[in-house]
Amino acid sequence: MRKKIRELGITVGKLPVGEKNCITDVAGVRVGHVTLDEPVDNDDSYACTGVTAILPHGENLFQKKVTAASYVINGFGKTTGLVQVNELGVIEAPILLTNTFSVPAVSQGVLEYMLESNPDIGIATGTINTVVGECNDSFLNSIRTCTVTPQHAIEAINNATENPAEEGAVGAGKGMMCFGFKGGIGTSSRIIDVKEHHLKFTVGCLVLTNFGNAEEFKSENYSLKISQSNSTLSPNDGSIIIIFATDAPLSSRQLERVIKRCGIGLGRTGSHFSHGSGDIVIGFTTANKIPHTAKDIVETRKQLREDHPVMNELFTAAAEVTEEAILNSLSQATTTKGRNGHIVHEYKFI
Amino acid sequence: MRKKIRELGITVGKLPVGEKNCITDVAGVRVGHVTLDEPVDNDDSYACTGVTAILPHGENLFQKKVTAASYVINGFGKTTGLVQVNELGVIEAPILLTNTFSVPAVSQGVLEYMLESNPDIGIATGTINTVVGECNDSFLNSIRTCTVTPQHAIEAINNATENPAEEGAVGAGKGMMCFGFKGGIGTSSRIIDVKEHHLKFTVGCLVLTNFGNAEEFKSENYSLKISQSNSTLSPNDGSIIIIFATDAPLSSRQLERVIKRCGIGLGRTGSHFSHGSGDIVIGFTTANKIPHTAKDIVETRKQLREDHPVMNELFTAAAEVTEEAILNSLSQATTTKGRNGHIVHEYKFI
Amino acid sequence: MRKKIRELGITVGKLPVGEKNCITDVAGVRVGHVTLDEPVDNDDSYACTGVTAILPHGENLFQKKVTAASYVINGFGKTTGLVQVNELGVIEAPILLTNTFSVPAVSQGVLEYMLESNPDIGIATGTINTVVGECNDSFLNSIRTCTVTPQHAIEAINNATENPAEEGAVGAGKGMMCFGFKGGIGTSSRIIDVKEHHLKFTVGCLVLTNFGNAEEFKSENYSLKISQSNSTLSPNDGSIIIIFATDAPLSSRQLERVIKRCGIGLGRTGSHFSHGSGDIVIGFTTANKIPHTAKDIVETRKQLREDHPVMNELFTAAAEVTEEAILNSLSQATTTKGRNGHIVHEYKFI
Amino acid sequence: MRKKIRELGITVGKLPVGEKNCITDVAGVRVGHVTLDEPVDNDDSYACTGVTAILPHGENLFQKKVTAASYVINGFGKTTGLVQVNELGVIEAPILLTNTFSVPAVSQGVLEYMLESNPDIGIATGTINTVVGECNDSFLNSIRTCTVTPQHAIEAINNATENPAEEGAVGAGKGMMCFGFKGGIGTSSRIIDVKEHHLKFTVGCLVLTNFGNAEEFKSENYSLKISQSNSTLSPNDGSIIIIFATDAPLSSRQLERVIKRCGIGLGRTGSHFSHGSGDIVIGFTTANKIPHTAKDIVETRKQLREDHPVMNELFTAAAEVTEEAILNSLSQATTTKGRNGHIVHEYKFI
Repeated sequence: MRKKIRELGITVGKLPVGEKNCITDVAGVRVGHVTLDEPVDNDDSYACTGVTAILPHGENLFQKKVTAASYVINGFGKTTGLVQVNELGVIEAPILLTNTFSVPAVSQGVLEYMLESNPDIGIATGTINTVVGECNDSFLNSIRTCTVTPQHAIEAINNATENPAEEGAVGAGKGMMCFGFKGGIGTSSRIIDVKEHHLKFTVGCLVLTNFGNAEEFKSENYSLKISQSNSTLSPNDGSIIIIFATDAPLSSRQLERVIKRCGIGLGRTGSHFSHGSGDIVIGFTTANKIPHTAKDIVETRKQLREDHPVMNELFTAAAEVTEEAILNSLSQATTTKGRNGHIVHEYKFI
Repeated sequence: MRKKIRELGITVGKLPVGEKNCITDVAGVRVGHVTLDEPVDNDDSYACTGVTAILPHGENLFQKKVTAASYVINGFGKTTGLVQVNELGVIEAPILLTNTFSVPAVSQGVLEYMLESNPDIGIATGTINTVVGECNDSFLNSIRTCTVTPQHAIEAINNATENPAEEGAVGAGKGMMCFGFKGGIGTSSRIIDVKEHHLKFTVGCLVLTNFGNAEEFKSENYSLKISQSNSTLSPNDGSIIIIFATDAPLSSRQLERVIKRCGIGLGRTGSHFSHGSGDIVIGFTTANKIPHTAKDIVETRKQLREDHPVMNELFTAAAEVTEEAILNSLSQATTTKGRNGHIVHEYKFI
Repeated sequence: MRKKIRELGITVGKLPVGEKNCITDVAGVRVGHVTLDEPVDNDDSYACTGVTAILPHGENLFQKKVTAASYVINGFGKTTGLVQVNELGVIEAPILLTNTFSVPAVSQGVLEYMLESNPDIGIATGTINTVVGECNDSFLNSIRTCTVTPQHAIEAINNATENPAEEGAVGAGKGMMCFGFKGGIGTSSRIIDVKEHHLKFTVGCLVLTNFGNAEEFKSENYSLKISQSNSTLSPNDGSIIIIFATDAPLSSRQLERVIKRCGIGLGRTGSHFSHGSGDIVIGFTTANKIPHTAKDIVETRKQLREDHPVMNELFTAAAEVTEEAILNSLSQATTTKGRNGHIVHEYKFI
Repeated sequence: MRKKIRELGITVGKLPVGEKNCITDVAGVRVGHVTLDEPVDNDDSYACTGVTAILPHGENLFQKKVTAASYVINGFGKTTGLVQVNELGVIEAPILLTNTFSVPAVSQGVLEYMLESNPDIGIATGTINTVVGECNDSFLNSIRTCTVTPQHAIEAINNATENPAEEGAVGAGKGMMCFGFKGGIGTSSRIIDVKEHHLKFTVGCLVLTNFGNAEEFKSENYSLKISQSNSTLSPNDGSIIIIFATDAPLSSRQLERVIKRCGIGLGRTGSHFSHGSGDIVIGFTTANKIPHTAKDIVETRKQLREDHPVMNELFTAAAEVTEEAILNSLSQATTTKGRNGHIVHEYKFI
């Protein structure tokens, strides 16, 4: 059983972590995985991949949308759904992660899931926007074979719970690698305690890591030593998808400001947002749920005073959770064997 | 047989049109359709929809990418692939259009088409970015049934020719409506003759129209009279996808400037880019083909002198082709019957 | 005395206009001008220019900021202050308009005005962001001479009233031209009556026009005939600054969506947003005034339900007020003689 | 005499530095300062401020423009000129840095400088876009007094040389502070040696630092100990302006990608891009000089193959030079006394 980075005595930043040190510390947020690890029914193909679902809350997301924002750190990626997120500042469906060529299948799955639970969509009330992020796991996974099905996406959604999320080589992270070692899913959280207002805000992050080579990793900042190098692995198309969650009341503009700081955490691990990376942040806040239908013409929204120091704490938290989630994706991942006998070793912390 | 707006004596703007008055006037550009018009094998469903493919040229697009740009007029839409187009300024696959819920199936189809013709993708040379645009045809089409298959997308690509494109209720336009009347596919072109430099540039546009209500249509500007009103049809989720093509040498930044002017043409027809619209422009130039692999470290690109008057002519052309293509989508469309007996009437020009 | 376009029997759009058909129909908004029309104390220079101030309300703007947004239609311009407007979504000082080379002097003036009325700025409470827009009036004005002083900017602010704004060759509009004729300041307004909610919203616009040549003007759409052509005047660096005001409760993101539609109105007059244009929209809403200091950590903001039809009416209003304000800048401007005997003729409406 | 960080045995990153470890290692780039350090002729005011000029090359910048881009890390700032840089991708005047309230005076100065050297501007050939960046030095400087004059800006331009730039409490950096200690001007450079193509590219950076508090500074990453704390100084309106220069051939889109990585270096020092920061990057490349006038309609531009590994080296270099330039602004700055007896101590490296 691998450990979280913090269990190894390594702390990132100064803010206190949440109870589970997981994105599910943000009340209502759920995470579910489906992992594929099996030969495919033809010659040499091997499925070493999966799907991960992040649900902003447990109710009908189309009926109770959440305020959202996206930020493209580097856009060599195929994430879908951002056009509408950027225009309207809401997310109205589970967020799904998978490998690059399974985006269509997973998009189909989340669409079917939403149609099933909302019989009025496409008949009486327009359409549904879905968000699917991806990284390229083709070193371990026979990505051309497209083994992920729409049903896998639906399963990942149905598997979602508020438990501490499984990390490492699981779900969409099954075939990913990070800094030349095994990466995948990582998560972390922070608590911002505004004592003078008797308020607590939670910030959480879940990453799908698939970037960097061993030389770039700033392990010296973490008093880490590398035991075994896979440094010849330097993926050109490495990427990271960062899912950011909070319960702090923020407008979509404010949220965009906050999630932009996730790039700080990514940079601190050693990444330079390489040319071939799809480094994308998707953020939401559960504070203002926006009903799909309403009689009102004027809504009342709560948002933080922008010049209150808590805003800077949110910025700090965004950097810290991202950095720690990336480290957790390394510390939790286990050595994985995939297609054509390819092996990616786990990072050993000494 | 319905006529193009120009055959009805209505001219838009001042620049001369190309030989076919079609996006295929830009040398190398191809258009193909697949149209579905049939009951689906369960109770009440009816497929009144389709797929349209636009190919920037007839060779392998992954091996010879084209300079590209996108511009979101209004982002209530689900078009995929724009993150990477915006980052890198290239398109490397056929552009596909379809209905909103068939984006996953069509994405899967164009992915399979590209994998088939590029055996190295996903093995030795990374991934492929595809662009799929959509409008919501749910008034006529049983959109929840998802009748479009990946194979339909591949067929549309294989159907693509340099002939004058079929317009109106065809391909992705089969189930669309515009200003409360039957809309769909429309196309137009312009020639910019720079006599003092012995140069001619061609500009073309293909639109998928599905927006507006009858009150908005500025028919008075076209000396048109409406014969029969469907004005109760006022789609909330109307949209327009605008595909812009040229052979003028432009950088992606310049191209983005040019295609931003397509919104002028849209506005002149009467649209106000309504809240529920996904109004999206995707543009490319065939002038600089960018090889996927190259030995060089430094490339030489041609681009227009930005302060040459031809730049303003391109701006004018972008507005004109968009406006005329929209009108052609109306004048070419025929009365169409779809799901649940829904009928959308063609616009009669008197 | 020249007339507004509507007094000439020409209507634009369908929405009802406000009482003054002026940006000052939005309660609290004020406009002030300072006009320079005099030989300068050296050889050939002639000052044919000025300053226009738009105040979102009559109180201390730094202490009571307004929600704001900007949208760059075409960015060949030198407007200042947009970086911070885009980041924070507020305006905290009067908006000033002038000629291109007087932006520094006018910036200095509005800075001094704000420092004078806020003794804490720069000592105890940080800085102040000012917004100054400009067009190039160098055909009529000896622009290199920089005759506008900081004091002129302060005077324009102090001149501001809620009266109907003077239009045409006045204030910053003194030396500007539009479609080859005399342009300058124009303004218009619209009322959106949401009867079922017993709510009325007002939308206003003030433009500084300095763009286009006679061939582009779509006078045929307004049943206008041109009496006298100055068509040889085709400024390369023409521009338009559009100030948009409303009292509808909007977030800065929503406001940005609304003001993007001002470009529709501009396009309908005939503009193609030429290469050398600084076509810039600055919008604000007076609905939520944001105090500079507050004890609260959480604010409550009102905003429109985004899918309520009133949003589309605001879009329509944005296009209509812009189009009508441009026409008013033409219909109100009088023939003006400037430097070197240059004359720009007024547009005659027959 | 204070030392550069590298002379203290601290290295940042892996790429080799240029000969001067200065932005002037990029051939042609010049830097000039004017420093004000004197009581002002009224009661309590003290001028502890200045102006810094960065010239992309030594010839007429309006006649030979350079390809440019900007990137706003956090937009609580008043930098001017970015609207046009973003639209056209060029810089055509010296870049000036100063304090927040001296932006108008410095803008006036650079305008006058450009008018003087280009008698056709404003008469025969349109206008000139200038870029002025700023930070708020109001703790040390009587910023409300506006002691900087246009003439100071012209002097800074005339002072510019290709020598190693003076760093620390000099020019615009005179009154700035960083991480609670004395900051100001810092600079650094990197060499990218592409041996297989016999090409060398130089990357340089000059920063104006005025951000952060002592707790944030990640001194532990640099094996630094803090000798004397000024940690009560935590400016709300801290900012950093980052000027990035290279001779690598890049389009403005590519350049924007590169300079976005400057934020990585900033984040690594400990910054979280605080709410009140104007953190802005302005980049240019001297590789393609663009003549103001030309007979050609088509230009030929050189740019790097985007997928060549050199692109990632440029990304790395952008992060490294920014981080090191920030550290140099600390290591080079000397304890400074300003208005009201305010003192900001230099950072002692042990």
